[in-house]
Amino acid sequence: MRTQVAIIGAGPAGLLLSHLLAQGGVDSVVLETRSEQYVAARIRAGILEHSSVEVLRSAGLDTRLRAEGDEHRGIYLQWPHERHHLDFVGLTGRSVWVYGQTEVQKDLVAARKAVGQEIHYEVSGTALHDVSSDRPHVTFTDRDGAARRLDAEVIAGCDGSFGPSRAAAPAARTYERVYPYSWLGILADVAPSTDELIYAWHPHGFALHSMRSATVSRLYLQVPTGTDPATWSDERIWDELAVRLGHGQDGWRLTPGPITERSVLPMRSHVRTPMRHGSLFLAGDAAHIVPPTGAKGLNLAIADVALLSRALIARLRDGDPGPAEAYSDTAQRRVWRCTHFSWWMTTMLHTSGEEFDAELQLAQLRWVTSSRAGATGLAENYAGLPIGLDAPR
Amino acid sequence: MRTQVAIIGAGPAGLLLSHLLAQGGVDSVVLETRSEQYVAARIRAGILEHSSVEVLRSAGLDTRLRAEGDEHRGIYLQWPHERHHLDFVGLTGRSVWVYGQTEVQKDLVAARKAVGQEIHYEVSGTALHDVSSDRPHVTFTDRDGAARRLDAEVIAGCDGSFGPSRAAAPAARTYERVYPYSWLGILADVAPSTDELIYAWHPHGFALHSMRSATVSRLYLQVPTGTDPATWSDERIWDELAVRLGHGQDGWRLTPGPITERSVLPMRSHVRTPMRHGSLFLAGDAAHIVPPTGAKGLNLAIADVALLSRALIARLRDGDPGPAEAYSDTAQRRVWRCTHFSWWMTTMLHTSGEEFDAELQLAQLRWVTSSRAGATGLAENYAGLPIGLDAPR
Repeated sequence: MRTQVAIIGAGPAGLLLSHLLAQGGVDSVVLETRSEQYVAARIRAGILEHSSVEVLRSAGLDTRLRAEGDEHRGIYLQWPHERHHLDFVGLTGRSVWVYGQTEVQKDLVAARKAVGQEIHYEVSGTALHDVSSDRPHVTFTDRDGAARRLDAEVIAGCDGSFGPSRAAAPAARTYERVYPYSWLGILADVAPSTDELIYAWHPHGFALHSMRSATVSRLYLQVPTGTDPATWSDERIWDELAVRLGHGQDGWRLTPGPITERSVLPMRSHVRTPMRHGSLFLAGDAAHIVPPTGAKGLNLAIADVALLSRALIARLRDGDPGPAEAYSDTAQRRVWRCTHFSWWMTTMLHTSGEEFDAELQLAQLRWVTSSRAGATGLAENYAGLPIGLDAPR
Repeated sequence: MRTQVAIIGAGPAGLLLSHLLAQGGVDSVVLETRSEQYVAARIRAGILEHSSVEVLRSAGLDTRLRAEGDEHRGIYLQWPHERHHLDFVGLTGRSVWVYGQTEVQKDLVAARKAVGQEIHYEVSGTALHDVSSDRPHVTFTDRDGAARRLDAEVIAGCDGSFGPSRAAAPAARTYERVYPYSWLGILADVAPSTDELIYAWHPHGFALHSMRSATVSRLYLQVPTGTDPATWSDERIWDELAVRLGHGQDGWRLTPGPITERSVLPMRSHVRTPMRHGSLFLAGDAAHIVPPTGAKGLNLAIADVALLSRALIARLRDGDPGPAEAYSDTAQRRVWRCTHFSWWMTTMLHTSGEEFDAELQLAQLRWVTSSRAGATGLAENYAGLPIGLDAPR
């Protein structure tokens, strides 16, 4: 087989890249280790920042998002006895949308299928070859057991932090911070008890009330790393969420419901540079991981792909290698902005057990919710910087 | 002896309190362990925030400040190859003034002497008694060796972190963070090489170019805690300052000169609560210590004293105990705002040796210097919040 861009990974990054390349007249073939069903069902992110919605809109991928997604003007920040609303639209003119990664994935699969995109699911033994040359290729075994070879001009590694692309792209430098806490996350079949997300600081630890739809809630509790989710009964989870989210405070009520999914998510920041090695370009989780506080993981992958698609179209269609040469450096500025913001949100909201830290966190929360500059700083980062820019003026 | 307010400490906090109380018709007597010459010569802070200048202005203490001080519109923030100016006046409408603590002290001494304020220098054995009652008193030995007793309605502890007031005021809670680095600070008889302060992040460590006047420069280098200043020759100090401050970058030059004073300053954050115990009220360093990054130490002491003077005048002249009852809680909000800001500036600018931290710091610096919200957040904290308010809207 031969194509212009061999895309490793059929998650949102890989499929969106394939879609944007096709719109620019560049062909691709997508390889995926998992089954289509598995990728479609995977529970991940749920918040699209303004810039991500813009990317999807300009790609013609926002019809169902507009119809079924839920636009939020901002978030709530709270600590015991105080809840404050940050109005992103009022502060920055930009909103965010609640629309699960599973939904984005459905839209992407439908769009790619509609134009006959070649996607190979359930491949095994994927190996990248000659990535330092301008004639790289990929070998793999397809789901029928046949050994295959895919020749390409470029390989795009969109296969996350455990895929083969990272292994084929030795990092010049890696940066990592492992946080000493995790999230116990649940999905519940119950209407959200809030119209917008609640980020709650509490002496017991952080809690987050998010949602997926008008009938599905998503909630998280800070727990010690290594917590076995089986040790938390449904009742204990709801009781602790009620305490940390302030059930009863100013008449607010948390409504519990059947828990349909639960898991413990470790939290780390990870950045590897550069994001390009010869003909291999990395995007999304293959190049960086952020903790989920601040909802930057999926959005950063979309920003990478928006940048990378333009760079590859310039190189492969227009013969201009400049943007591809600049891709890693340009992408890194946003990566570090989001890595910093995710770290900042995480360390502001998660308790460490140190009283000095707790008072610093409360001082910072009071400032963020009472100073227009403080609120705007959070809002502009959360709602998302324009693609290709490091920061707004 | 009998007075309304026994003030322990004749530094800027104690003398300003005595001045403000006198303007409100409340009498005080000031006790100081050191000699007048020692207190006058002590090298400390050099930057007055907008709110401090307002306090001095409304107290009639700003004549020489206006004539000899230097108003700054902002500061420079820099890292290798980039220097950015933050214009506090443009961002917040507020400026800061370069005017050394030694000069503030001179003005206060002159103002108090002009009206015959009773100040006892070189006292020893100062002990506070019956602070839980409403008839406290202080015993001490005066400089002539006579045992003395001072009865008062209130005692104000303005005697810093090593004075007897802290010992007489058992803290309900203390919060502390010791930073793993110190500042090597010098005074030099040379015109500053910059019109406004330069805060420099550098892989070798933080450096700061400050000044005291048109002919006296004040500069600092981050050094490991425990550094013996004698191990740094003048030449080595200037060489390292040149590297960290970017000598040669865009034509900028650092001009060295004779070093007249040098010392190593450890850095810590310390807060003790409450700031009142019965009839004993703490202000300034007696209640809290901030690291010098962000220039909040003297300014926070002035804010405490502005608040405390109003509270004591209300109680002792007007018979209204409310503001004195609220003093500790009200002051604490500003204390934690400044403690957070000082911690934030410190941890943004001092290298830790961790590469992840360095990249986070650079990401934050790029954001602060490119986002109006980021720049305004720094500016409004640096230039100082209005007295009695936690944060501006």
